[in-house]
Amino acid sequence: MKLVSAALISLGTLTAAIAETGSGPARASTPASILSSADVRSVAPALDKYTQDNLLGDLWKRPGLSPRDRSIVTLSVLIARSQTIEMPFHLALALDNGVKPAEISEIITHLAFYSGWGNATAAVAVAKDIFAQRGVRPDQLPPASPTPLPLDQASEQNRATRVQADVGPISQGLVNDTGRLLFNDLWLRPDLAPRDRSLVTVSSLIAGGQVAQIPYHLGRAMDNGLTQEQASEVISHIAFYAGWPNAFSTVPVAKTVFESRKK
Amino acid sequence: MKLVSAALISLGTLTAAIAETGSGPARASTPASILSSADVRSVAPALDKYTQDNLLGDLWKRPGLSPRDRSIVTLSVLIARSQTIEMPFHLALALDNGVKPAEISEIITHLAFYSGWGNATAAVAVAKDIFAQRGVRPDQLPPASPTPLPLDQASEQNRATRVQADVGPISQGLVNDTGRLLFNDLWLRPDLAPRDRSLVTVSSLIAGGQVAQIPYHLGRAMDNGLTQEQASEVISHIAFYAGWPNAFSTVPVAKTVFESRKK
Amino acid sequence: MKLVSAALISLGTLTAAIAETGSGPARASTPASILSSADVRSVAPALDKYTQDNLLGDLWKRPGLSPRDRSIVTLSVLIARSQTIEMPFHLALALDNGVKPAEISEIITHLAFYSGWGNATAAVAVAKDIFAQRGVRPDQLPPASPTPLPLDQASEQNRATRVQADVGPISQGLVNDTGRLLFNDLWLRPDLAPRDRSLVTVSSLIAGGQVAQIPYHLGRAMDNGLTQEQASEVISHIAFYAGWPNAFSTVPVAKTVFESRKK
Repeated sequence: MKLVSAALISLGTLTAAIAETGSGPARASTPASILSSADVRSVAPALDKYTQDNLLGDLWKRPGLSPRDRSIVTLSVLIARSQTIEMPFHLALALDNGVKPAEISEIITHLAFYSGWGNATAAVAVAKDIFAQRGVRPDQLPPASPTPLPLDQASEQNRATRVQADVGPISQGLVNDTGRLLFNDLWLRPDLAPRDRSLVTVSSLIAGGQVAQIPYHLGRAMDNGLTQEQASEVISHIAFYAGWPNAFSTVPVAKTVFESRKK
Repeated sequence: MKLVSAALISLGTLTAAIAETGSGPARASTPASILSSADVRSVAPALDKYTQDNLLGDLWKRPGLSPRDRSIVTLSVLIARSQTIEMPFHLALALDNGVKPAEISEIITHLAFYSGWGNATAAVAVAKDIFAQRGVRPDQLPPASPTPLPLDQASEQNRATRVQADVGPISQGLVNDTGRLLFNDLWLRPDLAPRDRSLVTVSSLIAGGQVAQIPYHLGRAMDNGLTQEQASEVISHIAFYAGWPNAFSTVPVAKTVFESRKK
Repeated sequence: MKLVSAALISLGTLTAAIAETGSGPARASTPASILSSADVRSVAPALDKYTQDNLLGDLWKRPGLSPRDRSIVTLSVLIARSQTIEMPFHLALALDNGVKPAEISEIITHLAFYSGWGNATAAVAVAKDIFAQRGVRPDQLPPASPTPLPLDQASEQNRATRVQADVGPISQGLVNDTGRLLFNDLWLRPDLAPRDRSLVTVSSLIAGGQVAQIPYHLGRAMDNGLTQEQASEVISHIAFYAGWPNAFSTVPVAKTVFESRKK
C-alpha cells in the first residue's frame, strides 16, 4: 500500500506499524484515517505531488529544525486543530523520529490545558491504537504523579504577581488554576523537557491563530532553549500544517519577541 | 464500563444512558466517541488523573456557577468547536444536570447562527442518538414556529440603527438577516431563556477566540441576568474545555465590559 | 430519503448521487455524514425550518452572487473548518451548480496551503467517494504539473519585495516557500481562474476568523475581478456557514478595503 507520505520511508525507519493498518481489524478501527497516495491522486494529483516533493522531499529534510522537532511541532498542530485524519501517520512518524511514547503522552496531556480537553480526548482515541500496534507498555508511560522538576521560584513569583494583577480582578478562579495546575504542576512534569513543552505550546498557539498569547510563550520557549533559528523554521513548518495565514499572522509578534531579546 | 468521567456518577444521577452505549448497536453507531478511563490511562495516566481530580472532583462542584450552567457552557463550547467525541457524555450529563431536551434543541439551533450551520448539523448527528436513548418525545421539543417572546422595541431600535450604520455600507444582506432572523426571530424563541441564550453565545465566542464580538454579547448577557461572578467563573470553566489561551484572551475584553458597567 | 436540503432539488439538478447514498456500500463508507430532514427534526425542528426556508428557499436564490459562486464559497468554508459532515451534500451540489471536478480538485489543493494540509486531506477523503459516485474520470482532473498561467512580473516583484522586507528577518524559509510554491506555482495553475482562487482564499480567511490576512487577499480578489457587490454577498453568505461573529468581524476590514479602492 503506497501511503500519502510513502516517500518518508526514505527518510528513515517508518515501518510496519502503518503498513499493518492496510488490512484486518486495525484498519477497521481507524476508517478513513489513512489515505493512500492513489486516493489523493484520484481527487487532486497536484496535492500528491506537493506532498511528495515539497513536504516529504524538502521541508522535513531541511536544516534548522530536526526531524524530531518537526514531529513535535506537527503533532501539536494536529492535536490543537483536532485533525485526527493525519494523526495515525504522524504519531507513527514521531515515534520513528525519536519522540518517546512518554513524550507523546505528555504532549497530549499538555494540550488538554492549552488547546482544550476535547482536543486531548480526540488524540487519545487515535494514539491508543498506535501505541497498541507499537507494543507500548504501561511502564513506558509517565506516572500520573511523578516527582516534579524543581521550580524556579523567582521566575514563578514574577509570573504569579503579574497574572494576579492582570487576571485576578476578572477571574480569580482562572488565576488559581493557572498557578496551581499549570505552573506548579503541569510544567514541572519531568517526562517532557521544558524546552519541548514550550515548543508544543508555541506550536499550538500559532496553529490556533492565538496571536495574543504568543509573545509570552515564545519568550519562555527561548528562555527554555529554543533558538531563534529554530523558531523561524517552526513558523515556516507550520505554514504547511496550519495554513499560510496562521504563519503570516505570527510574523509581527515573533518580530517583537526577537527584537526585544536583542536589547 | 468505567468511563472517562465516571466519577461524575457521584455528582448526581448520571445513569444508564451512557452505560448502555457499552455494547450493542447503540455503541456501533457512535464509534470511538466514548473513551473509558482505562483507554485514557493507556495513553496518558496524568490526563485521567486531572480529569477525575481537577475537572470532575473540583471544577464541576465549585460555587459561582451551577452544574446546569456549567453544562450549558460546556455544550456550547463543544458545539462551537465541533468536538463530537465528548458530546455524548456531555449531552447525557446536561440532561442529568437539568438542561431540558427543548433547551438542548434551542442551543443547537442558536449555534447554527453563531458558530455555523455545519456545527449545528454535527451536533444533531450526536444528539439524535442520545435523545433516542433517553426516550425524548417529539412533544418535548420546541415547535418550529412558536409564539415569540415580546420584543423590547427600544433596545432593538438602538441595535438596528447601530448595525445599519456600521454594517449597511458593507453588506446590506448581513444587516437584513441579522435583524429579521436573529433579533426578531431566533432570540425571541421562548424555549431557551434570554439569559441562557446569552450564556450560549458568550461561551461560543470565547471558545472560538472571537474576542471582537465579546463586548456586545457579554454586556447583553449581563443585561439578561448573568452576574459578574458567574461571568468570571464561565471564563475559568472554559479554560479547561477550550484551552487556557482562549480564556486569557478573554480577560482584557471582560475587564472593559465589567468596568464600563460600574459607571 | 428526504435530505436536510431536499428543497434544493427545486433549485436545479441535484440528482441521484445523493439519493444513492441512502443504501448500500456507498452510504456505509460515509456513516453519519448525511442527515435526513427527519433526523434534524428529531432534535431541532426549528433548525430544519430555517434550513428549508431561509437557506435553501432564500439565501441560495438571492441575486448578488451566483449559485456557482455560493458553492465555491461554501465548499471553501467547509474545507477551511474541516466540517466533513456537510461536505458530501455540498460537493454534489457544487457539481450541480457548475463547479467542475477539476475546479474542486484545485480548491482542495489550494486550501492545503491556505488552511492546512490536514484540511485538504480530510476533504480528499470525502471527495473521492463523491467523485467515484459521479463517475469522474482521471482525464477530468488537472495534471500535477500543467503549463502555468503567465506571471504578472511587476505585481509579483512588488509582492516579493514587500514580503522579503516584512518576513525575511523573521523566517526566510517562509519567504522562500511563499514565493516559490504559492505565487510562482499554485496561483498560476490554470484549472481554477485567479478570480475563483481569490474567492476561495477570502472565504477561507473569513471562515477562520483570520482578519489580519483579509485586506491583502480581498484587494487581490477585487483586482482579479470580484465585484464589491459580490464581496458584500460573500460576507452575508458566510454568516450562515461560518457563524455570524466571523461575518461581523470581517466588516471593519472590508470597509477599509472598499474605501481604499475608491480613492
